[in-house]
Amino acid sequence: MQVIQSLREIVGPRYVLTDEDCARWASDWTGGYQGQPMAVLRPGDRDEVSAILRLASQHRLPVVPVSGNTGLVGGALAAESLVLSLDRMNRIRSISPDARVAIVEAGVVVAALDDAAGAHGLTFPLAFGAAGSAMIGGVLSTNAGGANVLHYGNTRDLCLGLEVVLADGRVLDLMSALHKNNSGFDLRNLMIGAEGQLGIITAAVLKLHPRPTQHATAMVAMPALDDAPDLLNALQDASGGAVVAYEFMPRSFVEGHLALIPNAREPFEAAHPVNLLVELAATRTGPLTEVLEQVLAAWLEAGKIVDAVLAQNETQRREMWARREAAAEIAFHRKPFIDTDIAVPLNRVADYLREIEPRLRDLDPDCAMLSVAHLGDGNIHYTCFPSRDDAGLKSAMRDQIDRLAIEMGGTFSAEHGVGRSKLAPMARFKDPVALDVMRSLKSTLDPLGILNPGKTLPAPD
Amino acid sequence: MQVIQSLREIVGPRYVLTDEDCARWASDWTGGYQGQPMAVLRPGDRDEVSAILRLASQHRLPVVPVSGNTGLVGGALAAESLVLSLDRMNRIRSISPDARVAIVEAGVVVAALDDAAGAHGLTFPLAFGAAGSAMIGGVLSTNAGGANVLHYGNTRDLCLGLEVVLADGRVLDLMSALHKNNSGFDLRNLMIGAEGQLGIITAAVLKLHPRPTQHATAMVAMPALDDAPDLLNALQDASGGAVVAYEFMPRSFVEGHLALIPNAREPFEAAHPVNLLVELAATRTGPLTEVLEQVLAAWLEAGKIVDAVLAQNETQRREMWARREAAAEIAFHRKPFIDTDIAVPLNRVADYLREIEPRLRDLDPDCAMLSVAHLGDGNIHYTCFPSRDDAGLKSAMRDQIDRLAIEMGGTFSAEHGVGRSKLAPMARFKDPVALDVMRSLKSTLDPLGILNPGKTLPAPD
Repeated sequence: MQVIQSLREIVGPRYVLTDEDCARWASDWTGGYQGQPMAVLRPGDRDEVSAILRLASQHRLPVVPVSGNTGLVGGALAAESLVLSLDRMNRIRSISPDARVAIVEAGVVVAALDDAAGAHGLTFPLAFGAAGSAMIGGVLSTNAGGANVLHYGNTRDLCLGLEVVLADGRVLDLMSALHKNNSGFDLRNLMIGAEGQLGIITAAVLKLHPRPTQHATAMVAMPALDDAPDLLNALQDASGGAVVAYEFMPRSFVEGHLALIPNAREPFEAAHPVNLLVELAATRTGPLTEVLEQVLAAWLEAGKIVDAVLAQNETQRREMWARREAAAEIAFHRKPFIDTDIAVPLNRVADYLREIEPRLRDLDPDCAMLSVAHLGDGNIHYTCFPSRDDAGLKSAMRDQIDRLAIEMGGTFSAEHGVGRSKLAPMARFKDPVALDVMRSLKSTLDPLGILNPGKTLPAPD
Repeated sequence: MQVIQSLREIVGPRYVLTDEDCARWASDWTGGYQGQPMAVLRPGDRDEVSAILRLASQHRLPVVPVSGNTGLVGGALAAESLVLSLDRMNRIRSISPDARVAIVEAGVVVAALDDAAGAHGLTFPLAFGAAGSAMIGGVLSTNAGGANVLHYGNTRDLCLGLEVVLADGRVLDLMSALHKNNSGFDLRNLMIGAEGQLGIITAAVLKLHPRPTQHATAMVAMPALDDAPDLLNALQDASGGAVVAYEFMPRSFVEGHLALIPNAREPFEAAHPVNLLVELAATRTGPLTEVLEQVLAAWLEAGKIVDAVLAQNETQRREMWARREAAAEIAFHRKPFIDTDIAVPLNRVADYLREIEPRLRDLDPDCAMLSVAHLGDGNIHYTCFPSRDDAGLKSAMRDQIDRLAIEMGGTFSAEHGVGRSKLAPMARFKDPVALDVMRSLKSTLDPLGILNPGKTLPAPD
C-alpha cells in the first residue's frame, strides 16, 4: 500500500507495525474493546507526528492517538485506523526544582515522572491504579482523576503548558510554564480532556508539588454515610487542608475484597456498612497524626463514627491502600457487569446510594451491586451485576444509574471520559446546546473528521 | 429608531439608556478609553439577555458586555455599540456551606460575595484593588487574578459551572457544581477569560474556601531579589503551603508611596532595595506566626534577609496592605506613563528587572520606572515614565518590556487581559497557530462578529 510506504519514510520502517505486530493495540486491557488497526505508527518526535497528520489528512485516514492504552471507555479503539502511539516520545526534558515544573513528552509514564520528581523532593501527584503504565498524553487527553484530586486537582490542574499537533499537521505551541497567562482564549484547557478529537498532545509543562514527608492514614467506620461530608470538612479545618484522600468502601466492597484477594483481611473487628479510607499528608514535621487522632476521638465520643484504625507504619498504610486499589479486580471479576463513573455533589452521595438500589431492583430483583467512591469528589464507581446477560436489561440499568446522577445535579462521566462507552448518555443527558457547540468546534478544528472518529461526540439525531 | 423600540420591549423602557444617560458607560475608570455607546441595556434576567442577542444578531449590531467596568485594558469600550450591562443581575442565588459552593448571577460584586460567604465562615478569595466594584461576570470574562492567586488560583480555578448566552441567543447550560465532570470538551474554560468574544456569561457556580481565622503578615527586606523564590519555597515548606500572598515592592515603589499618600510611612528604619509583603493564613489555631518568625530568623541569621517586621495586630496588617494596594494610584499619578502586566517564570523576575532598565534607558536616558510584582506568580506590573509624550517612543518602550518577557519564557499579558491595549503584542508575540485557532473559534461561535468587536483578537495581517 502506497500510504504505508509513505508512513515508513516518515517514521522509519521498524516503527510502522502491521498485521499481527499490532496485537498490543488491537484490544484494551479490559478486553471490552477490540479491533484490528490498519497500522501502528510509533513516531520519535513532534515533527514526525506532524508529517503523519499531514499525510493522513491528504488521504483522509482516521488516526487514533494512543499512549499507555489503560483507558476504561474504549477511547483508544482503533479498528481500521492508524494508531499513533506516543510511547517512544518518552523523554523527561527537564525538571526545574525551584519553579517546581517538569517538561515532558507525551509518552512519559505517570509513575516514572513521579519517581523523577521524587529525586528533587517533589511529586507529580496523580494517583490511580494504572499510574505504572498510563502515560502523560493519555492522562491529559482524558483529564484523568484518581484518589488525590481532592487535594491536588485533576490532570487539568497539574498542567501549565501544552504542545499539540492539529489535524492538518500544524503545531500549536502553548508550552508556557507560567501560572498567569491571559493572552487570548484558553486553548490549553480545550485540548485537555478532548480525547484526541481536536489535536494530538505531544508534550506538556506540568506542575510538581512538594513531596509529602509524612502521612497519617486511617480506616474509619461509620454507621451511615450521611455524616461523612461533615467529617471531611472537620478534618480539613483541623489540619489546614491536609486531607489528600477520602475514599468510601461499602460492606459489599469489603466482602468482594475478602472473597477475591488472597490474604485479604477485615478492616475492623466487626463488619460495618461504611468504611472510609482517610489520608492526610504534609511536607513538614508537625502534629499530623495527632490532628487525625483528635478529630477521630471526638467523633467516636459523639457516636458519629463507630471504629477507627490508624496505620502504625508504612506496611499497614500500604495494606489499607491495597484494598482500595483492588477496585477494578473486584468490580470486573463477575460477569455480566455494568461499571459506571458517575459523580454527584458530595453531600448527595448517601442519598444516591440509598435511592439507586430500589430502582435497579425494580428492573432485576436478583441483581447484585457494589460501589467504591472518591467521596471527597462525589465520584462513585457504581457497579451492578445483573442476574442475566440481557442487552436491553443492561442498557436500562445503566440508564437508571446515569439518570439518577443527573437528577441529583451530577454527571454520568466523572473521570474516565466518554470514549465509546458513554455516547448514549452524552446524547441523552448532555445540554443540547453544549453538544452543538462541541460538534461545531470539532468541525472547525478537524474538518475532515480524521481524529479519533466515533468517540466522545454522539452522532446528531 | 425601530431597534431601540424593540429593545425597550425586551427589557422595559427604563432599562434602555441612550444619549447622556449612557455617561457612566462612555469611559473606563482610568479615562484612557472613551466612546459613546449606541444604547445601554440593563436586562433583568437571562431570557432578556437571550432576546437582546437574538435581536442584535438579526440587525448585526455590536454588543459589548459590561459588568463592574473596572478593567484596565479597554475591554469594555463600547463606542457605537450596545452596552449589555449585567449590573441588575446581581442575585446570590444560593450558598451551600457543606458543599462550599455559591450560585450567583453575573452582576454580583466580588466583595459582596465574599461578605455573604463570610457569614458561613467561608471566603470567595479573589483579592485585588477593585474587588469592591468588580463583578463576577467581568472577573470570569477576564480570568482576573490578584494577590492571592498563589494560594487559591485565579478566577478560572474558583469556577465550577457557568451559564452563557451565545451570540445567536442560545443558552449554554454548564451550571455544574461538580469537582469532576469529564463529559466532553471543556467549554467552561473556553468561555472563562474569553473577554466576551464567544458568549456572555450570565451566571456561575463558584467555589468557596474556608475563611482563614488567623493571618501572619510581615514586611521583609532583602539585599537583592535573587533569593526571594527560595524564601517563598522555605515558607511554603515550613507552613505546609500556607503562604497566601508574596508581593514585591522595589525602593522606587516605596518612595512613590511616601511621596503620594498622606501619612505614608517607611516600612523599615532604613531604606532597602527589595521590600516583600508576605502573608500566611490558616483556618485553624496553630503556630502560624511562630513558623513565619522562625523562618525569617534563620534567614536573618544567614544574612539572606536584612530586616523583617511582623504585623502585631490588624491595624499594622492593614497598613502593610494599604501600601501595596495603592499601586494603581502610584503608577498612574504621573503622565505620560506606560503600564504593563507581564509575567515571567518566577525565578527570572530578578533577571528581568536587571535587564529591562538599560534597554529602556537606551531608548530614553531620562525615563523613570517603578514596578510592583505578585512575585509568587512571576507577575510584574512594570510602569515606565518616559521623559516626553512621544507615541513612537512609548510604543518602542512597551515593545521592549513585552519582548524581554517573551525572551524569558514569559507573557505580555498575565492577568488584566488583552482588550484593546494588548492587540499589538498579541499580533507580534502570540504563537501564529494559536492566533489562527482563536480566530476560527471566534468565527464558529460568533459568525456575524457582533460580540465585543475590535478586542482580544488582532486583525489578520
